[in-house]
Amino acid sequence: MNILVINAGSSSLKFQMYNMVNEEVVASGRVERIGMDTAILSYEPVGGKEIREVDEILEHTMAIRKVLELLVHKEHGVLASIAEIDAVGHRIVHGGESFSSSVVVDEVVKKEIKRLFDLAPLHNPAHMLGIAAVEQNMPGVSQVVVFDTAFHQTMPATSYLYPIPLVLYKKHQVRRYGFHGTSHEYVSQRAAKLLGKPLESLKMVTCHIGNGASCTAILHGKSVDTSMGMTPLEGLMMGTRSGDIDPAIVPYVMGKEELTLNEVNSMLNKHSGLMAISGLSSDMREIQDAMDKGDRSAKQAFEMYEYRLRKYIGAYTAAMNGLDVLVFTAGVGENSSLLRGAVCRNLTYLGLELDEQANGKRVSGDRAISTAESRVQVLVIPTNEELVIARDTYQLIAKAAEK
Amino acid sequence: MNILVINAGSSSLKFQMYNMVNEEVVASGRVERIGMDTAILSYEPVGGKEIREVDEILEHTMAIRKVLELLVHKEHGVLASIAEIDAVGHRIVHGGESFSSSVVVDEVVKKEIKRLFDLAPLHNPAHMLGIAAVEQNMPGVSQVVVFDTAFHQTMPATSYLYPIPLVLYKKHQVRRYGFHGTSHEYVSQRAAKLLGKPLESLKMVTCHIGNGASCTAILHGKSVDTSMGMTPLEGLMMGTRSGDIDPAIVPYVMGKEELTLNEVNSMLNKHSGLMAISGLSSDMREIQDAMDKGDRSAKQAFEMYEYRLRKYIGAYTAAMNGLDVLVFTAGVGENSSLLRGAVCRNLTYLGLELDEQANGKRVSGDRAISTAESRVQVLVIPTNEELVIARDTYQLIAKAAEK
Repeated sequence: MNILVINAGSSSLKFQMYNMVNEEVVASGRVERIGMDTAILSYEPVGGKEIREVDEILEHTMAIRKVLELLVHKEHGVLASIAEIDAVGHRIVHGGESFSSSVVVDEVVKKEIKRLFDLAPLHNPAHMLGIAAVEQNMPGVSQVVVFDTAFHQTMPATSYLYPIPLVLYKKHQVRRYGFHGTSHEYVSQRAAKLLGKPLESLKMVTCHIGNGASCTAILHGKSVDTSMGMTPLEGLMMGTRSGDIDPAIVPYVMGKEELTLNEVNSMLNKHSGLMAISGLSSDMREIQDAMDKGDRSAKQAFEMYEYRLRKYIGAYTAAMNGLDVLVFTAGVGENSSLLRGAVCRNLTYLGLELDEQANGKRVSGDRAISTAESRVQVLVIPTNEELVIARDTYQLIAKAAEK
Repeated sequence: MNILVINAGSSSLKFQMYNMVNEEVVASGRVERIGMDTAILSYEPVGGKEIREVDEILEHTMAIRKVLELLVHKEHGVLASIAEIDAVGHRIVHGGESFSSSVVVDEVVKKEIKRLFDLAPLHNPAHMLGIAAVEQNMPGVSQVVVFDTAFHQTMPATSYLYPIPLVLYKKHQVRRYGFHGTSHEYVSQRAAKLLGKPLESLKMVTCHIGNGASCTAILHGKSVDTSMGMTPLEGLMMGTRSGDIDPAIVPYVMGKEELTLNEVNSMLNKHSGLMAISGLSSDMREIQDAMDKGDRSAKQAFEMYEYRLRKYIGAYTAAMNGLDVLVFTAGVGENSSLLRGAVCRNLTYLGLELDEQANGKRVSGDRAISTAESRVQVLVIPTNEELVIARDTYQLIAKAAEK
């Protein structure tokens, strides 16, 4: 069975073509700058040469058509015909309270995703464009949607409610949803497997630290709390997002600087975080390079980033009354031994013992970075959200076929 | 030496008359509803009868005059003449970055407190009314100001900076200040004394849990982080304040409900917290009474309140890489064994062992509520901010007299 995984943004579209017999990617790529006459399409069949085209691609339907053309291309293709694609899986950022797992797309599902536009105005509308584009190019193909929020639907009300008037929850759906769920779920399951322990026996904190970053408390396999909230702004300090601040700062700064609602949102989401404190970059690699050269602002940014992450790990340990496993994943989590080291060296009160050599090694793949004696096991696990989307799609389609 | 301690609010004024020979209060009371023709003055000489008067008291000057009249009253007074008052100490909420300790009031100090009006628009102007009222009624008397923020001025930049554009710090003083500093300092010093250990050797979290509530990480006697931020809104869930929420909720709700900056501030400060979730009360005693009767909303409010406090204790333990002492103080902290119990029973991963009997006892005064074997010592210490104000005033006046 062949599954096409799609992550559609407002002006971009990433894809992976999976062969589910061995869960392997056979081709992948992305379309960027959709809507412009200089859109960029890149495509790479596994084992083949990357192809890059600059072309006018005005909307998602055309982007998908171009991708499909390449997938069945005589020379560069990986499929004989489009009919070989059994199903398409989409990443959807916001599933609100409606979706606690992945589902097959139908009219009701599409209506519900649209109803949630308000909660994810930058993401859900773009995802819907992706779904519509597939419908137009591949009429009748089965589509599955996999939500970033679904894994966190197990949170108890004590975690997901905010201490603000309840009418805001009832009327405007203001509550904690959490994001990166697909990633948190994947690495938590992977961690249990690696440790050879049942997930149901473990207290775990998973740290998905990429450009966006979130931390999840996973008690016995279920998300019981997570740092992102109603939106991906809350929680950890990120590349360009502030994470937690005094909520009173929002009206204060709006008043002082005469900002509109959109402007203050943009300030907190796009001009804060590492970028704001370092004055240099939102990219942890560049921050670390600058630190190496003695840049004090970069050092300050790094210290705040590490400190705020460490506090969340401490908070979630208190939330679960203990910690067995700590997992780092995503770009920064997988690659920054500096960050992992700084966090772990200050958690020795938990009986956590960092294996400095294992942490420092420049390797990829799943690995432990704590000592054998450490009371908390620390793992680095590369995340693979696309694989989870492909698997969910495969399983739901297979189940639907059985009926 | 006699010191008058004053805490002036916008329409209220609390006072204590201290005899510093033995640090005893000789009289105390308050004026409420200043500005109305039905203002209420209550006054109680220690060992005497409480006096209550309803009268027209239109501003703070008149309120102070009435208080002074009672202090020297033939029948109810505790002083022979006003000249026996050696100095007046004021509680000031916001000292910004200008004040890291208490100071004697002069023109420069007054100017600086006024400059900080923007950061504490509800408090600092009222405090200035108190200072002016004393000047008018007791010309030439020495006055000292004691700041809620001063103790927290030892926080490192990593704790006090927010990950938002630095221009907001430089131009508008947006940073974490923290509050309740006088209380956190007092109970931390008291805790070290009770334990017979040098404060400089201890990792401590102090929880000031009253109508307002904050938590402080005190490393070796110094505040290194605290949950209230630029304003007292940030951090813990409180009686009517939300504490931490996704900052994106602010513009979202403003847009949905068409709220002004003042309205959203008011919602988060006055209509949130315990009040919003319970729908009943902002008072923990009433919440607990309702829980006893099976009220589910009250239970939900309590659980969120406890959970959010516990997470902060966990976070600050991670901030300091360990915890030796946990202190509860202020109205709820001193009186709610239910809250303390729920927090402590879920911190056993720290080696914390609650002494259930000691915790349950309805007593007042300093006391330990952890077992002798507990790796974390847990103390209940009634706070006494007025005594700290009286002491600081006494010391600064004595020092000034030496010169």
